[in-house]
Amino acid sequence: MDVLEEQPTFEIGVVVPKRTVKVEDESSDCVEVLVNEFKKVGLIAERVLGVADEFIKLAASLETLGMAAAELQITKQTRIGMELQFHWEEVKAFERQPDGSLFSWCERFYCYQHLIRGIKNKRQTAITLKYDGKEFKWEVGECLLQKLETEGIVKRVFPLHDETKRKKLLYSWALHWWDFTNQPIDEIYSYFGTKIAVYFAFLGMYTRWLLFPAAFGLTLQIINFGSLRLLVLPIFFVSIILWAIMFSQFWKRKNSALLARWQISYSMEADVGYKLLGMDRSSVQSAEKPVRKAHIKIEKEVFQRNEWFGRLLRFRNDALVILSIICLQLPFELAYAHTYEVMESDIIKFGLTAIYLFAIQYLTQVGGKISVKLIKHEDNENKEKRADSLVYKVFGLYFMQSYIGVFYHALLHRSFLTLRQVLILRLLVSEVLQNLWENSLPYLKYSYKKYRIRSKKRQEKKSSSGKIQFSSRVEKEYLKPSYSASIGEEIEDGLFDDLLELALQFGMIMMFASAFPLAFAFAILNNITEIRTDALKLLTMFKRPQPRAAATIGAWLNIFQFLTVMSICTNCALLAWLYDEEGRWKIEPGLAAILVMEHILLMIKFGFSRFVPEEPAWVRANRMKNATQAQDVCSKRILRSISAEKESREEKEHVVEKEFGMKKEE
Amino acid sequence: MDVLEEQPTFEIGVVVPKRTVKVEDESSDCVEVLVNEFKKVGLIAERVLGVADEFIKLAASLETLGMAAAELQITKQTRIGMELQFHWEEVKAFERQPDGSLFSWCERFYCYQHLIRGIKNKRQTAITLKYDGKEFKWEVGECLLQKLETEGIVKRVFPLHDETKRKKLLYSWALHWWDFTNQPIDEIYSYFGTKIAVYFAFLGMYTRWLLFPAAFGLTLQIINFGSLRLLVLPIFFVSIILWAIMFSQFWKRKNSALLARWQISYSMEADVGYKLLGMDRSSVQSAEKPVRKAHIKIEKEVFQRNEWFGRLLRFRNDALVILSIICLQLPFELAYAHTYEVMESDIIKFGLTAIYLFAIQYLTQVGGKISVKLIKHEDNENKEKRADSLVYKVFGLYFMQSYIGVFYHALLHRSFLTLRQVLILRLLVSEVLQNLWENSLPYLKYSYKKYRIRSKKRQEKKSSSGKIQFSSRVEKEYLKPSYSASIGEEIEDGLFDDLLELALQFGMIMMFASAFPLAFAFAILNNITEIRTDALKLLTMFKRPQPRAAATIGAWLNIFQFLTVMSICTNCALLAWLYDEEGRWKIEPGLAAILVMEHILLMIKFGFSRFVPEEPAWVRANRMKNATQAQDVCSKRILRSISAEKESREEKEHVVEKEFGMKKEE
Repeated sequence: MDVLEEQPTFEIGVVVPKRTVKVEDESSDCVEVLVNEFKKVGLIAERVLGVADEFIKLAASLETLGMAAAELQITKQTRIGMELQFHWEEVKAFERQPDGSLFSWCERFYCYQHLIRGIKNKRQTAITLKYDGKEFKWEVGECLLQKLETEGIVKRVFPLHDETKRKKLLYSWALHWWDFTNQPIDEIYSYFGTKIAVYFAFLGMYTRWLLFPAAFGLTLQIINFGSLRLLVLPIFFVSIILWAIMFSQFWKRKNSALLARWQISYSMEADVGYKLLGMDRSSVQSAEKPVRKAHIKIEKEVFQRNEWFGRLLRFRNDALVILSIICLQLPFELAYAHTYEVMESDIIKFGLTAIYLFAIQYLTQVGGKISVKLIKHEDNENKEKRADSLVYKVFGLYFMQSYIGVFYHALLHRSFLTLRQVLILRLLVSEVLQNLWENSLPYLKYSYKKYRIRSKKRQEKKSSSGKIQFSSRVEKEYLKPSYSASIGEEIEDGLFDDLLELALQFGMIMMFASAFPLAFAFAILNNITEIRTDALKLLTMFKRPQPRAAATIGAWLNIFQFLTVMSICTNCALLAWLYDEEGRWKIEPGLAAILVMEHILLMIKFGFSRFVPEEPAWVRANRMKNATQAQDVCSKRILRSISAEKESREEKEHVVEKEFGMKKEE
Repeated sequence: MDVLEEQPTFEIGVVVPKRTVKVEDESSDCVEVLVNEFKKVGLIAERVLGVADEFIKLAASLETLGMAAAELQITKQTRIGMELQFHWEEVKAFERQPDGSLFSWCERFYCYQHLIRGIKNKRQTAITLKYDGKEFKWEVGECLLQKLETEGIVKRVFPLHDETKRKKLLYSWALHWWDFTNQPIDEIYSYFGTKIAVYFAFLGMYTRWLLFPAAFGLTLQIINFGSLRLLVLPIFFVSIILWAIMFSQFWKRKNSALLARWQISYSMEADVGYKLLGMDRSSVQSAEKPVRKAHIKIEKEVFQRNEWFGRLLRFRNDALVILSIICLQLPFELAYAHTYEVMESDIIKFGLTAIYLFAIQYLTQVGGKISVKLIKHEDNENKEKRADSLVYKVFGLYFMQSYIGVFYHALLHRSFLTLRQVLILRLLVSEVLQNLWENSLPYLKYSYKKYRIRSKKRQEKKSSSGKIQFSSRVEKEYLKPSYSASIGEEIEDGLFDDLLELALQFGMIMMFASAFPLAFAFAILNNITEIRTDALKLLTMFKRPQPRAAATIGAWLNIFQFLTVMSICTNCALLAWLYDEEGRWKIEPGLAAILVMEHILLMIKFGFSRFVPEEPAWVRANRMKNATQAQDVCSKRILRSISAEKESREEKEHVVEKEFGMKKEE
């Protein structure tokens, strides 16, 4: 297998504006310089003229990427299973991706970044660059791309879709409706990177697992159990709780199996040993250096102080968020729910809802911004930890917003019928509206951008006759919106919204399961369409998203587990209300039984992870085997180098001592 | 620092009977042969004649141990922090223990075992051995020690006390009463090994932490809060629950800090990467071999099948134990408690208790034996896992036995006064009796053995005049009982009983805390004496225990956590009873508040570990640093060897293909 067999495809696009003034001396035109510099570092550059802008498409040979990876000190899995720093000369020692390429998309992206951002003025003097008649200096040692970005010449650097792979995925994934929950996860991984692939694997597994409660719920709805209903409902409740507990544990197992297949070393149980790509590693090293010099005792103290200080800071922020949710958001939501209930005129109700919807839109924005600000002061270990911290805080907001109204109805009316109506309304409305919104908004944005450019061009040309065609693919991609979160764009991407939607749905169907068993059937229908529409969205509506290194769905799994615990409590309360129709609230055998059941379920929830570990045995055995193998390969050699080092140090000390002694004698 | 500076001390004793018949040809006397073989493998042997038996004391030079360690493929921490296989030539590369020796006591013990058990007949023919006139053959390749053990000549191989270290510990630890909870943990570790040291560290920390609830409980007892009492009690309850939650988490941190100091690599959060000593490692390898040859897909399936089968087996066993406890033990205990309550005559009560005590003694024995049998069929990963499995099963038994009576009293009478009386009785009686029993029994056993030997000797000599003195220290040690569990001797040692006592005490004081706050003060007094009496017991009453490789208190911590969760529930129930004196059982604000409080506490219990990780940041940073350092040292070299291997394999394949092609052409 030849190392160089891979055909380089254009994967990165750089946008520069069209120049109106032609420069005579091409060598000082800044775009010309940029393209030349790209070529110097080994990138393959192609210039494309669009309607409004000019585009530089970039590709790289495997060797160029390999050299960049070695510079970045990326660690990769080798054939013996150990993770080692990448060296281009020893490329054969490294394991390939499932699709046969050497680097994953995420690694390639980091290498491109490194290459592009690494272009600096290495000459002795500043270079004069020209752009549209303007002149400016590229100072010694300055990063060219950064300079051009601050000058407003490079508008954007974004990853390009790979047309052949995209088309293949479009047919094998997004348009493969009849597959229901089956998805080509490996191809998704090699095209979009770990985090998005993990999301779709999760969505698929969740939908598949939903079949059981959906069927159970449907049965409850269709068959009239009559007087047995009071017995069937608790059985349903217990079985869906067990289902949820097993689901979260088996998802963890599936996740670690996926990671093993993709050669990503990540311990599910602890974040120990998980390093993100090279960049993070170097930051760890630099952070250590000042400490390492100090005495080991002081080092320990510094670590301990930092650990506790960071923890206190995070605790303070969390407390702040929780308090403000309880003190500010809760009264607001309750006030709305109550006013809505009290009002009698439908028009006022409608107006009230409109104002409310407008207000929460605004409030969520504000809450999100505050959360982003708060986590910026936290010293989370890496970007993904920071994203998790944000997810927790923002989810608190949405949790209150989504469920407090339902709780209010459930508490105040204690009528299963009203509760069910509210739930149906919420589920249907949120699902239909969400899907419409999700899928139409990016298309509208794209169309609007196209329209703007067209009308601008027409004004310039003063002729409205010829229709302006966007012929170049790269320009169309540039006009598409990017896959970004509705909140905190720089930290999270569009997955935030997709996972939020999923979590809110999960909470809605689980927490009120015994009031409305049919909800699971709604959810499964929604999720089956969700898989394909999300795929379509990613493949056709958006720019190709930047790959992320996270290997799990992160904080969201904890949120799912939290919702499971919550649903144990809420369902018990619902059942208690159901059996206590007269509102006597006496502890009788029935209520006592419910309390006991609740406690047993909580125990199972927290005990189950002991019974089924999060990592399948074969994944673990593989890792253990690899570790011992690696040790066997090199242990003696390493040992020799260590003891040699020690001896030479001792000799030096000896020499120093001797000299010292001689001096004393003198 | 010279490698050979350590003075070898005698650490292993072998017991053989005194021979009555003198053999003329000394070279075929089996004891003579044994001693010679010991000397041949590099051990230093000294023969001591005792009153009833003869003893061979064994010591080993560091080099002998080092060679054995290399043969065992023991992995040790090196100076760069990576764990590598031990090689005697590269001894300087390895980190030393905190006390300056190269091997820990546990490693030394395994090396001795390896040396002693590794003596085999390497000649071509069987060797005739003689003993007291009897003759038998030492076959080719047979293990000498095993042969002699089956022939009844070697009575026992046991670790010897190191007199200087023992005396030092005796004064700095066991007799240092005024230190309260301070103990020289590092010295304990280097003398007794990890598991015992961890137990004492746990006991010390637990006692220190007990100060807070003991002080609080005492305050509650002394000061009369009057009508405020109903408010103070819940505060007490909440604070001791928080105390227990924090204690278990901070203990984990302390444990991992201790392990880092002792250079034991063990991830607290997962058992990943934790290998016991060399022996276990080779067993892992051998278990893998037949599997490794198969295709990787099949391998995965085999692992999965084994994993699930093992889990089902364990689940079945656990279910069996739980069911039999509920169906057999529970009725028995309830029957006793009820009969005791109903009876009026004190004499009958006394007789009943006597019968009961006798019966539970017997039942526990039976239960323990059944548990041991059950876990023998489980395929637990290693000996410590097996021990944990036993601990869970047996604790179930003791849990029922200890608490069901108290629960019965609490439930039936709903009177705090009766409950308190029962608790005081239990705590005082169990503590006093336990301590007396623990400390007198081994001494009685020792004295009885001495007495038996003396009377036997007297009978032989037919002269009762001269007093027979046990002058040799090794014989006295041999006569001392070994530190073994009252249950399942081959799996657990005496720590089982000590930790069981501690766990039962913890459950007793926690589960009924709001009924009897003073219990904590009783517990702290008991534990302070426990530290010193346990130390005294280990140093003077018992043989030196065999070191165990376990690095934590294992299953017991989970039991402590389980008891904490239980105590949240029981205390809530107690409080509910307290506020509901008339027994109306109406859900009123008070009861609702208690329910809410219970749920919040449960949440905190399970959420706290997210807030405070189990491993201090400095331990983790250390490990990460070491890992990257190690990679930097050798990555390039390993890579070269991997890719070279791959190339040579490809070449071979190429050659084979060519040959194949040529054959086809022919």
